[in-house]
Amino acid sequence: MPKKVDHEARREDFAAAAYRVIQSRGLAGATVREVAREAGFTTGALVHYVKSKDELLLAAAEYSAKVIRKRMVTPERAAPGAKALRDVMYLSLPLDADSRGNWNVWLGFWERATQNADVRAMMQNRYTEWNNRLVRIIEAGQEAGELPRDVDAHRAAQGAVALVDGIGVQVALAGRKVTARHQRQLVNDWISSTFRLPASEPA
Amino acid sequence: MPKKVDHEARREDFAAAAYRVIQSRGLAGATVREVAREAGFTTGALVHYVKSKDELLLAAAEYSAKVIRKRMVTPERAAPGAKALRDVMYLSLPLDADSRGNWNVWLGFWERATQNADVRAMMQNRYTEWNNRLVRIIEAGQEAGELPRDVDAHRAAQGAVALVDGIGVQVALAGRKVTARHQRQLVNDWISSTFRLPASEPA
Repeated sequence: MPKKVDHEARREDFAAAAYRVIQSRGLAGATVREVAREAGFTTGALVHYVKSKDELLLAAAEYSAKVIRKRMVTPERAAPGAKALRDVMYLSLPLDADSRGNWNVWLGFWERATQNADVRAMMQNRYTEWNNRLVRIIEAGQEAGELPRDVDAHRAAQGAVALVDGIGVQVALAGRKVTARHQRQLVNDWISSTFRLPASEPA
Repeated sequence: MPKKVDHEARREDFAAAAYRVIQSRGLAGATVREVAREAGFTTGALVHYVKSKDELLLAAAEYSAKVIRKRMVTPERAAPGAKALRDVMYLSLPLDADSRGNWNVWLGFWERATQNADVRAMMQNRYTEWNNRLVRIIEAGQEAGELPRDVDAHRAAQGAVALVDGIGVQVALAGRKVTARHQRQLVNDWISSTFRLPASEPA
């Protein structure tokens, strides 16, 4: 048993290292050698745990999913309604330098997904998870009487996914000019118009 | 004079060829050699008109802007209001194979923009133009009494830009599964909730 645990822990170390390298250098800069160095191991050691560069990139994406998933559980479990939805959407935005780095990774994966079926399948899984989380939050808000029931939860979730990605693109192109406040404002506008709630200024 | 006209016409031929190559092979596949071949010239002839690969890519982006701009003028000049807005947004969507190709180009430029300042500047110009067009259409609709005046035209335009990009991402990842009807539905939902208009099914 300990051996298996060690193997998985080591693999996760490499995934985390790959993620950090992609954040700072883009997908193109994430060579096996650079990732091994970041993790503090030799290239040979890395290759023992991860068979190919594509496998390494997919492991990095899984790693980032795990980090984000953990953060989103708290608002989802809080009181259902517009606040839970807003907080989860805020968590997905490129509000600071660290999350802007995540978004650069994400944009790289989009581009790669158009060319590579494995990356595309991984991205589709991630989006299904994200979309389902939003549907769940909206439906819980509707059941609690906090959000209007006549709004289609699936269509609203798709709109939310698209809005967040579009904001990510604007931030990638314009950087800090699209401020955190401005991003939150776009999310608030969307929530209030979609669910016919009073407009609210972001905190 | 004729010489200058020839020079510009030839440069546009190369831009159009570069655009077609990027559509089918992605940015990475758009080598100078491949573009020259597509245009029916030698590499040497191409280099005479376009100084670098980056210049070629930027020219291709300008070319595509010109094509799309021409298409968008008609609905913008039609009766102002929700219909003009909807028709222009439809024109920007990846509804068929040709426009899905355009979107693959666009995604490639996003990724490159995160790494290259010239590409980023070009993309910012394109987005400013697109955003301004939407603001103009929304404000014309408000002046004509077709759209409510209390909706902030600039914020609504930013929401529209983000939504369309987000739809483009979903299509790039899921292909035909995100049908044309489904894309139009997302735009219609957004317009009706943002401007408090009755919901409408797409044609």
